[in-house]
Amino acid sequence: MRTSIATVCLSGGLVDKLHACAAAGFDGVEIMDADLVAAVESPEEIRALCARLGLTIDLFQPLRDCEGVDDATFADNLRRARAKFEVMRRLGASMVLVCSNVGTATIADPEVAARQLGQLADAAAEYGISIAYEALAWGRFVDDYRDAWNIVERADRANLGVCLDSFHVLSRGHDPAGIEGIDPAKLFFLQLADAPSLDMDVLSWSRHHRLFPGEGQFDLTTFLSHVLRAGYTGPLSLEVFNDTFRQTDVTRTAAHAHRSLRWLYNSTVRANGQLDAQVAPPQPPHAVDFVEISGSDLSSVEQILDQLGFDFGGGHRTKAVRLWRAGEASIVLSEEPRAGEPHIEGIGFTVTDAQAAKRHAVSIGATPRFRRTRAGDAELPTVSAPDGTGIYWSSASTAESWVAEFEGGQTSEIDSLHGVIDHLNVALPWHEFDEAVLFNIGVLALDPGTSADLAGPYGLVRSQVMRTRDGSVRLAMNLAPPTAPLQPRHIAIRVDDVIAAAERARRSGLPSLPIPDNYYDDLHARFGLDDEFLHLLRELNLLYDRDANGSFLHFYTPTVGKVFFEIVERRGAYDGYGAASTPVRLVAQEDRRAG
Amino acid sequence: MRTSIATVCLSGGLVDKLHACAAAGFDGVEIMDADLVAAVESPEEIRALCARLGLTIDLFQPLRDCEGVDDATFADNLRRARAKFEVMRRLGASMVLVCSNVGTATIADPEVAARQLGQLADAAAEYGISIAYEALAWGRFVDDYRDAWNIVERADRANLGVCLDSFHVLSRGHDPAGIEGIDPAKLFFLQLADAPSLDMDVLSWSRHHRLFPGEGQFDLTTFLSHVLRAGYTGPLSLEVFNDTFRQTDVTRTAAHAHRSLRWLYNSTVRANGQLDAQVAPPQPPHAVDFVEISGSDLSSVEQILDQLGFDFGGGHRTKAVRLWRAGEASIVLSEEPRAGEPHIEGIGFTVTDAQAAKRHAVSIGATPRFRRTRAGDAELPTVSAPDGTGIYWSSASTAESWVAEFEGGQTSEIDSLHGVIDHLNVALPWHEFDEAVLFNIGVLALDPGTSADLAGPYGLVRSQVMRTRDGSVRLAMNLAPPTAPLQPRHIAIRVDDVIAAAERARRSGLPSLPIPDNYYDDLHARFGLDDEFLHLLRELNLLYDRDANGSFLHFYTPTVGKVFFEIVERRGAYDGYGAASTPVRLVAQEDRRAG
Repeated sequence: MRTSIATVCLSGGLVDKLHACAAAGFDGVEIMDADLVAAVESPEEIRALCARLGLTIDLFQPLRDCEGVDDATFADNLRRARAKFEVMRRLGASMVLVCSNVGTATIADPEVAARQLGQLADAAAEYGISIAYEALAWGRFVDDYRDAWNIVERADRANLGVCLDSFHVLSRGHDPAGIEGIDPAKLFFLQLADAPSLDMDVLSWSRHHRLFPGEGQFDLTTFLSHVLRAGYTGPLSLEVFNDTFRQTDVTRTAAHAHRSLRWLYNSTVRANGQLDAQVAPPQPPHAVDFVEISGSDLSSVEQILDQLGFDFGGGHRTKAVRLWRAGEASIVLSEEPRAGEPHIEGIGFTVTDAQAAKRHAVSIGATPRFRRTRAGDAELPTVSAPDGTGIYWSSASTAESWVAEFEGGQTSEIDSLHGVIDHLNVALPWHEFDEAVLFNIGVLALDPGTSADLAGPYGLVRSQVMRTRDGSVRLAMNLAPPTAPLQPRHIAIRVDDVIAAAERARRSGLPSLPIPDNYYDDLHARFGLDDEFLHLLRELNLLYDRDANGSFLHFYTPTVGKVFFEIVERRGAYDGYGAASTPVRLVAQEDRRAG
Repeated sequence: MRTSIATVCLSGGLVDKLHACAAAGFDGVEIMDADLVAAVESPEEIRALCARLGLTIDLFQPLRDCEGVDDATFADNLRRARAKFEVMRRLGASMVLVCSNVGTATIADPEVAARQLGQLADAAAEYGISIAYEALAWGRFVDDYRDAWNIVERADRANLGVCLDSFHVLSRGHDPAGIEGIDPAKLFFLQLADAPSLDMDVLSWSRHHRLFPGEGQFDLTTFLSHVLRAGYTGPLSLEVFNDTFRQTDVTRTAAHAHRSLRWLYNSTVRANGQLDAQVAPPQPPHAVDFVEISGSDLSSVEQILDQLGFDFGGGHRTKAVRLWRAGEASIVLSEEPRAGEPHIEGIGFTVTDAQAAKRHAVSIGATPRFRRTRAGDAELPTVSAPDGTGIYWSSASTAESWVAEFEGGQTSEIDSLHGVIDHLNVALPWHEFDEAVLFNIGVLALDPGTSADLAGPYGLVRSQVMRTRDGSVRLAMNLAPPTAPLQPRHIAIRVDDVIAAAERARRSGLPSLPIPDNYYDDLHARFGLDDEFLHLLRELNLLYDRDANGSFLHFYTPTVGKVFFEIVERRGAYDGYGAASTPVRLVAQEDRRAG
């Protein structure tokens, strides 16, 4: 597979973009004319730079509104095109994109479009240039790839073919199966973009909200399957217009983009049963093995764990790392002088084959991460998530072999806490959200679950749950509004009896997050709870939710640095996260910070 | 006119919101139940705080999905409602909003809705509470205010009336003239919101994109005229859900909100010919009288003006202020030790009646601004724009009387520059944009002109021109992407011969912003300009645009601090700003900064 990307996906100047594309591992680029026009470097310099960086210039995009016009307009279009073909000669680019006319077309006749594209192709041929003709979803007369192919067939020129763009096909709901009917020699180019399901005009949707493959709701695996079965052998190229990516760091976005293509290609190959021996399969996690908290002083975290009823699992025999356990829930504390405030530093997952999980992750562009081990220490394959969090895998067959490295742990007390890690709640800056979605799908093999907009005191928080199908691993990702302070992250421990857990925490002197009386009056109004139960909830600062499947009770610890804990109990088949109570929790935490 | 605002418009906790509403001058508030539920203060405390602040609680919003349901569901709804009526009793609120059912309604019969609302009203009556019933634009069976009124009429309870919301009426394109057919005794409440024209689903449009009156595309003056003619005498209340306002400073947003209501009310009264003697009419500007640049060291600015061919107009007789003039274009330089980098500090406008302009501005909430004058100095009525820029007005009859305060100016040289201020280009942080639109419409009496999305190297820049109809005053407002550095602002001087101006600047050693060769190759392709003209443009770093009306030539000076200058020439009836060249200019300026 050759990979390519349109320079319009990235921020900054053209030279910076090219360096970033090469560093990310792309084989080629589509150059948007506007990027070249604004560059101080000549076409010859850009050509030479691409050659040095090992990038081919797969496509150039200088033309719009060419065909379907009257003869005088077409003559001027041909003049414009020749001037751009001249630029392409200097640039060393041999394929040009022509999108269906959106602005100036006055003639709906495909015969006229074919004649004019044929003439354009003949002019291009003089420069050794091929034309890839693409139906835009909002083209005035041509807005379906099948019509574009029909016009290309009519024009019948060797250097005229079609360009397919997944957005233009799927946004209109056109069946991509028809792609297999196109002559493979005429499939000149392929542009890929994902997008969220949005009910809005297709032009704004395309201009502002495209996403990299895997981050939206399009079925790109099926789309690409049709294209590959049709016999397409050119590059897979990304063309993603997105307000966020245009603003973010170019090197990081290019790496992110390349990961999305590798993920899509691997998924498609796998879906078609054409298993490449080199491509390790993804390893969906069975459970959260442990969560690692790091900081320069973790004594407050340790105190909270102790007060919650965690057992001390011992100190690591060679590192300044301590283990705390509550049944299946393991928290690893790594104290390092320069680690700053307490924060979630890493997450361990149990998978079928830990080495395969890492090989798969690296194959789609995850960054390997160094983990210091001494003789006899367990090997935990490790990568870094885009936000820097460490991802550790241990094989189910050897799970918890690392636990034996901890010495001096205490045996379980009678009233110690027993639970599992129910979910992690991870706040992300707005411009890192889509990248994290892709990482969680592609590398961690999680599926998108429910999503919701929650009203916080400083703006709406978009929440997206990523999970395994059975719910054994759940990450709730929160997208904070741009101006709001980034929320701390938290670890939710699920227990069988949250009331007992709350009472135990209270006995040991742990203050739980105080919840206002008005909240309990509201619970009374919403659910008609009986007075005794309501009184108990109020006394213990427990939050409550109920739906058709069951109910949810939970409480929060104070925040230490950038982390806090939540203790939850799921009754019946309740599968949510108490979202209705989130605004109350956010305000209460804000009050604590301010107070 | 009584003014009110829904607490959901603002950020932060309920107590902060109430203080901000009172400080902004609101008479009352609509309290959103979620704000109360999350508050640590009891309903009694909130009631007492509102009383101390002089705020009435005009509406409470705790109920949804009440009517059009089966009997068992309605019985539970009634139970929920009674619990909330009890909270209202404690809160001292006597009107509750009931929106048409969007979630649980199963019965489309207005008779059933009327019966259930009647029962709800009877329960409310026990608590002395009135119900305002509102048709949501996306209500399942009731989505038109005329249907809501029909149901209220059928139910026929003294304490049941309708609530009108401009968004729900205008977003659906319903004719607001029918409001005049509603019994005025049944017009219980009025919610006002503006919105941009967007082609998207109405629920997302409402939740995320509402604007304060004057900032969007709804004809609220006509809407409010119908409501007032119908005999409505209750408060005008704002209900604006907007992702931006929820994040911005609560005090500033409340003041901004109150300005929008005053502007709307004044405009509506004026449009109906009911001139209130206390309400001064707006004063559309005739011209930009001057622009004031401030800074701790303005020598670089002074050198650029000198090199451009501005004449030194003298020093102020009592202040450290100097005047530079190029024909009609006046630049005032205020050097102050702590003024920081050079920046645009103020803008002077010529109007028919300067005192009336200020009275009008203050009547809709603009902040008066102190301006130090000595005996004999001209009185320039002054306010501050929301971003802190000073706005000065001088009456046309006494225009430039302030010029006489400057002494020691030089007489015009032979090749000095002659021009007028064509436009100002003002970059704004994203969360101050709508506020500035309202200020420019309401206080400066400018109209929205063209708007466009321009691709900058670090994201799309939304550009909105505000202008007088004749184009004599133009402000181009640019909304920068959140993470991009805020662009400097600039002053565009229009001359008759920009080529001569560019040559003069070059002779005096002023480096103009260098424009890449590729840009001129592109001009050649786009416009087929002849070689000699193209050569001239290239030599002088002139940018060029052409449309059906005429053409536009311009160049830029280097940036000093936060300001730079543009010299423009409009040929024929060209009325734009060379937007197609803006990406090239932005990249060139970015290269200068980095280089």
